Amino acid sequence: MTHFSSRVKNLHASPIREVLAVIDKPGMISFAGGLPSSDTFPELNISVIPPTFLQYGPSEGEEELRAEISKQLQENGLHCDQKQVLILSGSQQGIDLVAKLFIDPGTKVAVESPTYLAALQVFNFFGANLIPLDLTKPGLGLLTAGAPALTYVIPTFQNPTGYCYSKSEREHLGKTCDDNGSTLFEDDPYRDLMYEDCDRTPICSLLKRSSWIYQSSFSKSLAPGLRLGFLACSTDLIKPLMRLKQAADLHSNRLSQWLVLKQIQDTEYKNRLIKLANTYKGKKDSFEQLLNEYLSEYAQWQSPSGGLFFWLKLTQKIDTSLLLEECIKQNIAFMPGQAFFAEAEQSDSFIRLNFSHASTDKAEKGLIILAKLIKYFFKSAPHPRQTQSSPNRPEPVLT
Amino acid sequence: MTHFSSRVKNLHASPIREVLAVIDKPGMISFAGGLPSSDTFPELNISVIPPTFLQYGPSEGEEELRAEISKQLQENGLHCDQKQVLILSGSQQGIDLVAKLFIDPGTKVAVESPTYLAALQVFNFFGANLIPLDLTKPGLGLLTAGAPALTYVIPTFQNPTGYCYSKSEREHLGKTCDDNGSTLFEDDPYRDLMYEDCDRTPICSLLKRSSWIYQSSFSKSLAPGLRLGFLACSTDLIKPLMRLKQAADLHSNRLSQWLVLKQIQDTEYKNRLIKLANTYKGKKDSFEQLLNEYLSEYAQWQSPSGGLFFWLKLTQKIDTSLLLEECIKQNIAFMPGQAFFAEAEQSDSFIRLNFSHASTDKAEKGLIILAKLIKYFFKSAPHPRQTQSSPNRPEPVLT
Repeated sequence: MTHFSSRVKNLHASPIREVLAVIDKPGMISFAGGLPSSDTFPELNISVIPPTFLQYGPSEGEEELRAEISKQLQENGLHCDQKQVLILSGSQQGIDLVAKLFIDPGTKVAVESPTYLAALQVFNFFGANLIPLDLTKPGLGLLTAGAPALTYVIPTFQNPTGYCYSKSEREHLGKTCDDNGSTLFEDDPYRDLMYEDCDRTPICSLLKRSSWIYQSSFSKSLAPGLRLGFLACSTDLIKPLMRLKQAADLHSNRLSQWLVLKQIQDTEYKNRLIKLANTYKGKKDSFEQLLNEYLSEYAQWQSPSGGLFFWLKLTQKIDTSLLLEECIKQNIAFMPGQAFFAEAEQSDSFIRLNFSHASTDKAEKGLIILAKLIKYFFKSAPHPRQTQSSPNRPEPVLT
Repeated sequence: MTHFSSRVKNLHASPIREVLAVIDKPGMISFAGGLPSSDTFPELNISVIPPTFLQYGPSEGEEELRAEISKQLQENGLHCDQKQVLILSGSQQGIDLVAKLFIDPGTKVAVESPTYLAALQVFNFFGANLIPLDLTKPGLGLLTAGAPALTYVIPTFQNPTGYCYSKSEREHLGKTCDDNGSTLFEDDPYRDLMYEDCDRTPICSLLKRSSWIYQSSFSKSLAPGLRLGFLACSTDLIKPLMRLKQAADLHSNRLSQWLVLKQIQDTEYKNRLIKLANTYKGKKDSFEQLLNEYLSEYAQWQSPSGGLFFWLKLTQKIDTSLLLEECIKQNIAFMPGQAFFAEAEQSDSFIRLNFSHASTDKAEKGLIILAKLIKYFFKSAPHPRQTQSSPNRPEPVLT
């Protein structure tokens, strides 16, 4: 009787949602979400927030915060006026707004594959025709696929791979967008979490003609519970994006906007970011030692130059969704690789492990169990997937 | 060169956005937005928030808050489990999520006309075929239009009219939805702001068969800057709505969720709501006296039995958008009526005046100026609308 919209056929269970739902379970060791380490969160003091911030505010965000962000973007090489900045309720919202602005059923959207899975979900939901980018090919492999309306990339410490584009790859992507008229959507939430010196020039700053959206988040550098991010965009896009923002939630949380403003205006903020990167580099190094110790027989990986993840290619193909189910029974969570790909099937098996959330002790305990289960799956592969109608089966984590 | 989605043709400037952008202007007297009175905001203390609330949280919202909300809904006659409750980043977000779930281009959506303008905007953006409800007709005037997929109403202290549905109107609407299989979307942000005793039974609680979504907000009862609302829905809708919530912003602000939880758990909360309604009733009465004094020659209105607005029908047809432009030059803001209607043209002119925000002194000052300008417009009507291309003309507040 209930008549849903046609796009609902593309609305699937989310691995992220499922994982966020279990991480609070007592005893759970999670390598799954991109969860920052809780001990890095700032001290906040709300008693100093002006009471006017409890009132409705402007859709585009607080003026002072937009000004501060545009100043910091200019320091990073992206020249934009504060009028081009839009405050978001977390950068996930930017993906929703940009998808609404660009994507009809069949619209071509170029993406890295693998890429951020919740971006794929939103693009799929709006009916996008996803075209995988290939950095190793001329024109990024787009020459035969036709110009995409939108090109979505995470060039700096990519999710899930941790990869950082080289200078020439940045230039190549920028030129490709300029040549084919594709709007560049650059997602940059990890840039402050750098462990090796890399070129982090925003590709948006290299464009000569194409429209662009650059977005980032305060979830990694400050705290995710504040749900605050921002985008900056070419002048032609700010007005429609602002209207979409207003239609989505009127404006972002003003307590968070005030708290973030005070944090990023603080003279200690840049030191804070350096310390944060150092803390995470230490965590990354310890985690890698554990990986070497327990997983090297079963997987290959590159040490990430930034970000929050190790991306492991397993040495044998197994069903990583089933592996996850078994792991969750033993209080271990990770993210199976399949959901990060634009293509339906992969010839190899991948898993994504977050190293920032679990303590070293817990990480070791978790990786020992993970290794045991992988070994078990390797031995018993091919491991047929049970049918979806079997009783007592939870909703599949991936669809 | 930039390729937007086809729905962007339905993306117009928002009167709300324009108004939120000017209300902070020094000296502005705003009757425009539904802005609560700032002196009603609670005292908040963030220093007691558990630091875990700075981490990512579940998409559906904090469990304790959902439980508390379901308890309060049951006290209001709406029986639902906490698993049917979804926390929202303000109730505007509920409109976005429900529109995504139900509306394709051409989908029939029944609405009151006039109704909340930002709901109309979202429904139009997704391409809805809007069908005005007529409470005075059998089957609400829907019999010839065919069954709508969705029926959106604000039965209790309606925005903009302040109207409260009678018991029999509630039953009639519920039965109509049950009969035609339309999903009922009941928006109830004003129920606590009651000035005369009214039947406030949620119509969703009267349904026997149809699916339903009931939503409300903490913007009026606590503070809008917290950007927190919630929806409850029939069991068939909670899973897709949760997934849409996750795709929209992962989850709502956790500081706000914690602060709201503590407020609504407080033994003084119900007294707070009674005091709040008394405060607003006082403001409503004073405002009405001023209206009688200055506007009775130019407009007619019903005293609202709840909510935040007076809905004035002007005694002569004029261009209220032009009137607004002139008013803004003199630091007075209000909401022209046209944007609240589902139909393109009205034979009468309406304006919506908020009485909760301006102090009595400022309200008097503002209404005197408003009356003068209406008088001027009446005298010079018909007042031809200037062409949109005239120089120095701001973007029209309404499109």
